Amino acid sequence: MIVILKPGIPSSEVEIISEALSEQWNVKVEKSVGQHKTVLGLIGETALLHKDQIQNMNPWIEQVLRIEEPFKRASLGFRHGQASTVKVSTPNGDVDFGKNHPLVIVAGPCSVENEEMIVETAKRVKAAGAKFLRGGAYKPRTSPYSFQGHGESALEMLDAARSATGLGIITEVMDTADLEAVAEVADVLQVGARNMQNFALLKKVGAQDKPVLLKRGISATVKDWLMAAEYVLSEGNPNVILCERGIRTFDRQYTRNTLDLSVIPVLRTLTHLPIMIDPSHGTGKSEFVPPMAKASVAAGTDALMIEVHPNPAKALSDGPQSMTPNQFDALAAELLPQRVPALV
Amino acid sequence: MIVILKPGIPSSEVEIISEALSEQWNVKVEKSVGQHKTVLGLIGETALLHKDQIQNMNPWIEQVLRIEEPFKRASLGFRHGQASTVKVSTPNGDVDFGKNHPLVIVAGPCSVENEEMIVETAKRVKAAGAKFLRGGAYKPRTSPYSFQGHGESALEMLDAARSATGLGIITEVMDTADLEAVAEVADVLQVGARNMQNFALLKKVGAQDKPVLLKRGISATVKDWLMAAEYVLSEGNPNVILCERGIRTFDRQYTRNTLDLSVIPVLRTLTHLPIMIDPSHGTGKSEFVPPMAKASVAAGTDALMIEVHPNPAKALSDGPQSMTPNQFDALAAELLPQRVPALV
Amino acid sequence: MIVILKPGIPSSEVEIISEALSEQWNVKVEKSVGQHKTVLGLIGETALLHKDQIQNMNPWIEQVLRIEEPFKRASLGFRHGQASTVKVSTPNGDVDFGKNHPLVIVAGPCSVENEEMIVETAKRVKAAGAKFLRGGAYKPRTSPYSFQGHGESALEMLDAARSATGLGIITEVMDTADLEAVAEVADVLQVGARNMQNFALLKKVGAQDKPVLLKRGISATVKDWLMAAEYVLSEGNPNVILCERGIRTFDRQYTRNTLDLSVIPVLRTLTHLPIMIDPSHGTGKSEFVPPMAKASVAAGTDALMIEVHPNPAKALSDGPQSMTPNQFDALAAELLPQRVPALV
Amino acid sequence: MIVILKPGIPSSEVEIISEALSEQWNVKVEKSVGQHKTVLGLIGETALLHKDQIQNMNPWIEQVLRIEEPFKRASLGFRHGQASTVKVSTPNGDVDFGKNHPLVIVAGPCSVENEEMIVETAKRVKAAGAKFLRGGAYKPRTSPYSFQGHGESALEMLDAARSATGLGIITEVMDTADLEAVAEVADVLQVGARNMQNFALLKKVGAQDKPVLLKRGISATVKDWLMAAEYVLSEGNPNVILCERGIRTFDRQYTRNTLDLSVIPVLRTLTHLPIMIDPSHGTGKSEFVPPMAKASVAAGTDALMIEVHPNPAKALSDGPQSMTPNQFDALAAELLPQRVPALV
Repeated sequence: MIVILKPGIPSSEVEIISEALSEQWNVKVEKSVGQHKTVLGLIGETALLHKDQIQNMNPWIEQVLRIEEPFKRASLGFRHGQASTVKVSTPNGDVDFGKNHPLVIVAGPCSVENEEMIVETAKRVKAAGAKFLRGGAYKPRTSPYSFQGHGESALEMLDAARSATGLGIITEVMDTADLEAVAEVADVLQVGARNMQNFALLKKVGAQDKPVLLKRGISATVKDWLMAAEYVLSEGNPNVILCERGIRTFDRQYTRNTLDLSVIPVLRTLTHLPIMIDPSHGTGKSEFVPPMAKASVAAGTDALMIEVHPNPAKALSDGPQSMTPNQFDALAAELLPQRVPALV
Repeated sequence: MIVILKPGIPSSEVEIISEALSEQWNVKVEKSVGQHKTVLGLIGETALLHKDQIQNMNPWIEQVLRIEEPFKRASLGFRHGQASTVKVSTPNGDVDFGKNHPLVIVAGPCSVENEEMIVETAKRVKAAGAKFLRGGAYKPRTSPYSFQGHGESALEMLDAARSATGLGIITEVMDTADLEAVAEVADVLQVGARNMQNFALLKKVGAQDKPVLLKRGISATVKDWLMAAEYVLSEGNPNVILCERGIRTFDRQYTRNTLDLSVIPVLRTLTHLPIMIDPSHGTGKSEFVPPMAKASVAAGTDALMIEVHPNPAKALSDGPQSMTPNQFDALAAELLPQRVPALV
Repeated sequence: MIVILKPGIPSSEVEIISEALSEQWNVKVEKSVGQHKTVLGLIGETALLHKDQIQNMNPWIEQVLRIEEPFKRASLGFRHGQASTVKVSTPNGDVDFGKNHPLVIVAGPCSVENEEMIVETAKRVKAAGAKFLRGGAYKPRTSPYSFQGHGESALEMLDAARSATGLGIITEVMDTADLEAVAEVADVLQVGARNMQNFALLKKVGAQDKPVLLKRGISATVKDWLMAAEYVLSEGNPNVILCERGIRTFDRQYTRNTLDLSVIPVLRTLTHLPIMIDPSHGTGKSEFVPPMAKASVAAGTDALMIEVHPNPAKALSDGPQSMTPNQFDALAAELLPQRVPALV
Repeated sequence: MIVILKPGIPSSEVEIISEALSEQWNVKVEKSVGQHKTVLGLIGETALLHKDQIQNMNPWIEQVLRIEEPFKRASLGFRHGQASTVKVSTPNGDVDFGKNHPLVIVAGPCSVENEEMIVETAKRVKAAGAKFLRGGAYKPRTSPYSFQGHGESALEMLDAARSATGLGIITEVMDTADLEAVAEVADVLQVGARNMQNFALLKKVGAQDKPVLLKRGISATVKDWLMAAEYVLSEGNPNVILCERGIRTFDRQYTRNTLDLSVIPVLRTLTHLPIMIDPSHGTGKSEFVPPMAKASVAAGTDALMIEVHPNPAKALSDGPQSMTPNQFDALAAELLPQRVPALV
């Protein structure tokens, strides 16, 4: 951080400010004296500082400028520029998520409707090459009158699908009160877009062992998103996967959200964490999923999450964005050979 | 809802669709047959229906159009066009929020820092005319490294401030696990902008008795917001106050958010619920609070929430948007006489 | 501007960069040498510089930070903190726009439909207290199949309305080719939201004498807007009025745009130019105009632009947002006494 | 369009409304009478109608719903579902833009700086496989103090580059007054994002023969964009190419705009017009261009526009988003073989 002092500041005030900074915030203060202005550089854990609080310390402070990112464990520099691998155990063996690994596909229905449908879907997506089954037991719905998920009984159905196929399970946890039950079944815990800044939940998934899939909030900046990841990381859980699923913009007529694929190269310059793209929520229409899935792979995503339902027309939620198993077969066959992982 | 059928549909298919609609969704179906097109009108609890699910029922369905709002208990029609009153008990007596009551001012610091500061602030804002003290015990912060609130001990300090002044207490609950503890002290439970679609939390505050202050999410549409209120109402708690605190737009350089004051007349046409405006979060700068507070009152708000801190420069959070007690005195003196409540 | 150099830069490179900066950009360079980092401060016409171009000058440059605004003639500092007055001659006498003058109301229909309606409307709005008549001769319409305005013949009708009432005329110019014809009739030239960054047009209205009403583009930041004003000012025309008319956000269901009233206090801290608010376009519905007009005055606007049509139901454009003359009478009677101009 | 009448409407009023609709708007009106509600279907050129004007016709009208798109010549149905080809003559032969043709690459600098640089760049991009040279003679710049382009003399330099290489020329026209001069040199006229709703300009480029590249405005919805294309088409020029170059969203920290690649599949369902993507403006950083260019091709774009500058660090505009000729060589070599045009 850079603190610019006002012209004409007495040198005694410069000393007062420098000492206050180094004492209060535990940073090293480096003074640069020019003819008209004096500039202080702060060295240390500046990610923990807030511009406004420094600004308010002393009326001789003209401006405070941040010149580094406020996230730390999520930053690329934290791993010296090396991408991290999130390794997930599944009955079929370990699956690695990351820049240096093959494309991972997660597929399944929006919500778990009954045991037959979830087991059947699991078999189909496994046959097509998916490594994980997605499916909601607890569903965040805009309306209280919409289907809210089957809850605990759906967790049992997911467990049955896991036993039947060996696929890993990714499912959402919406409430800290459900965490233990969900973590018993899930191989990866999903924190949904609407809960991306539910900090109580982030802290608790950070304090347990299962890997976390962190969906980007619909109006979260990339920085907000990485700060949410930082919550999980700072509690001790290093296994976070970032999932883009579309942001909210002024145009919502033909797509449900605006899928922001530029986050792929942007995140590569900022963080070591693996990247997943969800073109199903990103577009909201199954016919738009294949082109956007291909685009995601071309842009370098590490993983994809795709909604597949045995009968989208009868789905209890998100039918319009769900592919049929046959459509998914064709797409997976096209995608899986394409991803040549970068060399380690 | 209106279901438009494709030209050339056989009359047998019209029957099949009509019956399926009335059976599956428990609505009355009214058929309008024209020369080229047949249109079905659905009458009943259509707030519970989803366009997409109906669309997917049958390939002869051309389009499904919603012609009524998806919220019900929150709608103005639910109370036959009459504004509701949210009455809150405080040690100083009942306070009424609503279109037909005088302006209510809620004031206090962003977070409860220590007992002395919160009691002192409470005394000052009470003297200026505020009826409620705000103050965060649990703080949602973008960074895990920022001050997170003093938690339970802050709740005790709020209780002390309440005893000392008789003001009602409004404070945020962030996690269902803390609900009981917060509800013991708070006279109104605040659900923050980041948790506006934390549906687990909404259901639980809806299933208890304390009134709820529901802040609008930074990217929530008015409809999303009213649907979130519907979650609380549908669980049985009729006492919801809606609080606008700024939305996220493309311009974030000079204000923290964009305060959307047009929600005041918009909400009046849609809902019976009382309206509060928070110009402190809405602008992020204390110097912008007085003009926006005056504008809010001129546009007809029922209540205001304003951040006041005895020493904004030393605040542990949100210092730049906090007014001093003296500044607040002057503002409240200007605002309180202005609001002439509409006649009942 | 502040140029931060990388640690370890040889002093010869510091000299090379300093000289290049002062030669290429004609600024004074002030060097501040610290223990680890050297910082260069640039003094002079830095509004003309671009961060990126400086960043690219030399690989030893770590970061370039702008610490002042890129606009100059539009800035508050350009007039040493004093608000400017835009004085407009009308047949009824000079009208002053600015912080230190009474509220000015501009009213009239979206488009000039025929001579009778525009003269009649002019008489009504004059009687209610408006000082200017608005009315489009050339209309920017989203669809090529919508009414595009009567063009030159409408200018003649506006001239007739001016003769009949003595009101000043504000009308939009959409094409540099029409500038001369429009300027012959208009007392104030309006540049519409869609043309806010039509730089060819801005330069030409800047190179003539009539005052300019510059509407904010629907996705223009406050900075973009002031830079557009700077185009006009830098061509020699000092008479620019800024008009907020709503921005485009994610929520467009109940209002046409989101009226951003916080620009009023924000602009007061940045610029000396007068401010107008257009709640008709800002909300898109006539019933929302009175509360938002009152809010604008409470927040300190210098002027209001309000759409009035003798028969909104038959209007060729923007009927839903037009008030009737009777509705406008009532609103103007409430608004005009309220504005107490700030002391000079 | 569907007009829903209020319950209890007398049949005489239904007749009055039906006749007024068919007379005023020249549409066929089809009546559907149900038990409680009567619905009118409007058949004909409903693209030309406005909901609000119909709504205002009669107080018995409850709601007006649009069930078809407001654009016509731009719609996919206008060509019976067939993609159109925009054929452009260049000295090197005709180049076809469209879904059924190979990928076309347009490359070159942001602005034409001098003859040597533009000829040199043209040779390099031609050698790499580009078919068109881009380069601005007239530059829309946010600041009046930034380089505004060399104007007419730059047009001569583009002409020289065309002679030297045989590449087609794409350059922007910003003012109707310059149209003739620009059209003399350009093979394709570019209408920039800031002028996408400069309707005077759209009409004039629609009334001449050169193909038009229509960039999407930064806050234009897909519908606004297609309506802007409709302006050009309705004036008689059928040769319009649509170019996505990023939209403005709430997050502008790491990319200049948000490149909306989902427009590719969306536009395929709405329009027959060819599609181009500009990842240079879309991201604003040259390092993000290759992944987004690959993603664009994977999603099915017909053409790409890429900024290339012989020395980005010295560019007079947009240096940070320009690739070097060597970087462009590598990218083009990867992209050009990939696009397998769809079968005719």
